[in-house]
Amino acid sequence: MTTQQLIEQIKIKKSFLTIGLDTDLTLIPKHLLAFEDPLFEFNKAIIDATFDLVVAYKPNIAFYEACGIKGWKSLEKTINYLNDNYPEIFTIADAKRGDIGNTSSMYAKAFFADLNFDSVTVAPYMGKDSVEPFLAFENKHTILLALTSNDGAYDFQTLTVSGKELYKQVLETSKTWKNSENLMYVVGATKAEYFTEIRKIVPDSFLLVPGVGAQGGSLAEVCKYGMNANVGLLINSSRGIIYASNGTDFAQKAREEALKMQQEMERILKANL
Amino acid sequence: MTTQQLIEQIKIKKSFLTIGLDTDLTLIPKHLLAFEDPLFEFNKAIIDATFDLVVAYKPNIAFYEACGIKGWKSLEKTINYLNDNYPEIFTIADAKRGDIGNTSSMYAKAFFADLNFDSVTVAPYMGKDSVEPFLAFENKHTILLALTSNDGAYDFQTLTVSGKELYKQVLETSKTWKNSENLMYVVGATKAEYFTEIRKIVPDSFLLVPGVGAQGGSLAEVCKYGMNANVGLLINSSRGIIYASNGTDFAQKAREEALKMQQEMERILKANL
Repeated sequence: MTTQQLIEQIKIKKSFLTIGLDTDLTLIPKHLLAFEDPLFEFNKAIIDATFDLVVAYKPNIAFYEACGIKGWKSLEKTINYLNDNYPEIFTIADAKRGDIGNTSSMYAKAFFADLNFDSVTVAPYMGKDSVEPFLAFENKHTILLALTSNDGAYDFQTLTVSGKELYKQVLETSKTWKNSENLMYVVGATKAEYFTEIRKIVPDSFLLVPGVGAQGGSLAEVCKYGMNANVGLLINSSRGIIYASNGTDFAQKAREEALKMQQEMERILKANL
Repeated sequence: MTTQQLIEQIKIKKSFLTIGLDTDLTLIPKHLLAFEDPLFEFNKAIIDATFDLVVAYKPNIAFYEACGIKGWKSLEKTINYLNDNYPEIFTIADAKRGDIGNTSSMYAKAFFADLNFDSVTVAPYMGKDSVEPFLAFENKHTILLALTSNDGAYDFQTLTVSGKELYKQVLETSKTWKNSENLMYVVGATKAEYFTEIRKIVPDSFLLVPGVGAQGGSLAEVCKYGMNANVGLLINSSRGIIYASNGTDFAQKAREEALKMQQEMERILKANL
């Protein structure tokens, strides 16, 4: 999917909501455990109940990997279901990969070529040659960790290197890499006060913003400082939406939570664009 | 496996060699493609031909993930084969994972509990709460990226933060984390001149050292500056050993290459300990 197609979807749906599919066997409604593939059944129900309110889904790969081969089957079925039924929706493999060149190429193949995700999250610590193999794929997007939503973000990301914080150095250096137009960045909603500075470095890039909801970030604050003329934000919510209920009404309750966020986004878009 | 058991194996085998199982369908001998599971057949042959010369095997997870569900089956069979037949050998899941706490817990479960690896490589960018879920597992080891063997290592890892390079800050900060006695570190052999400084910060920790061989690092140099009283090094070679031949003699040729390295290690151990 091109960035332009993503922007069009945001305008059509009046939403820049991403739902994180952090699907956990111990948290999904008990009645789903009777199905052959409970993870997929859960995802399918969530997707069918919310697809018109969101522009992206973000399976968190760890949750599938933790179920071994069964989990990979569930992941494969989920991404195929999305691509077959909702090809207009942007898909994010939240994998946080990153390795030396020939190894990163294998991860890029896995997520872009085989599973056919539109994007994958990547860690920057190993530098240019660990990220460029992902950037080489046309109309695919590499979402680089910049400033994450967790407490550990302050351990290294905000340390000062050459007069600026490390995450700013990551933003600036990554702009010089080959095919850097395929980059987006992870910036946590719990750090809304940083968005002004970030927008000075990457005014046009899309930012994937976790941490609204369960982790306490504010949507209004993030939009105030982070939005650009093309919106430029993908706001992710996982647990706050998908685990709104653990009864048989889970999909309906997830829709209600997603609708609240979509409506708030619609108001913000109306006021700003 | 405990660190003490690993040290004993090094003494028994007079080796601190790790073989990286970067098993790639396009590089393994063509006659193996007739088997139902070529990746596993290749790994099994390499393992059976070299087990007495090495103390560890390191499957590179990307290479299995790139084959989807089939790849995960090959990985599962490989680790089970190692644990069933060579339980004295240390196993490393080279996965370079790292995410927010509840997600890192899922990765830790996948590699430590389900697949029963002895250790996993982890990226430090997201800080303390992204690594501690791995450290929580008893007699399991978390191998944190410090200074990697690739060119991209100079993009961020060697930048100066608070008067020292970032990788040194990673070493120092990680020592303060809960269960930090379960930490080892990745330090590339291509950067042998850094080992003296690294040993000042982590004198006792095991260092996993990639980059000897195909990437050009020198074993003698690494040992000169990096070895401690318990050896404290796991030297990895992947392509230089496993792809020594792509004929039907591949396992024998791999053994010959591994033997050369083991013999050099035996000489170094004799001279130093």
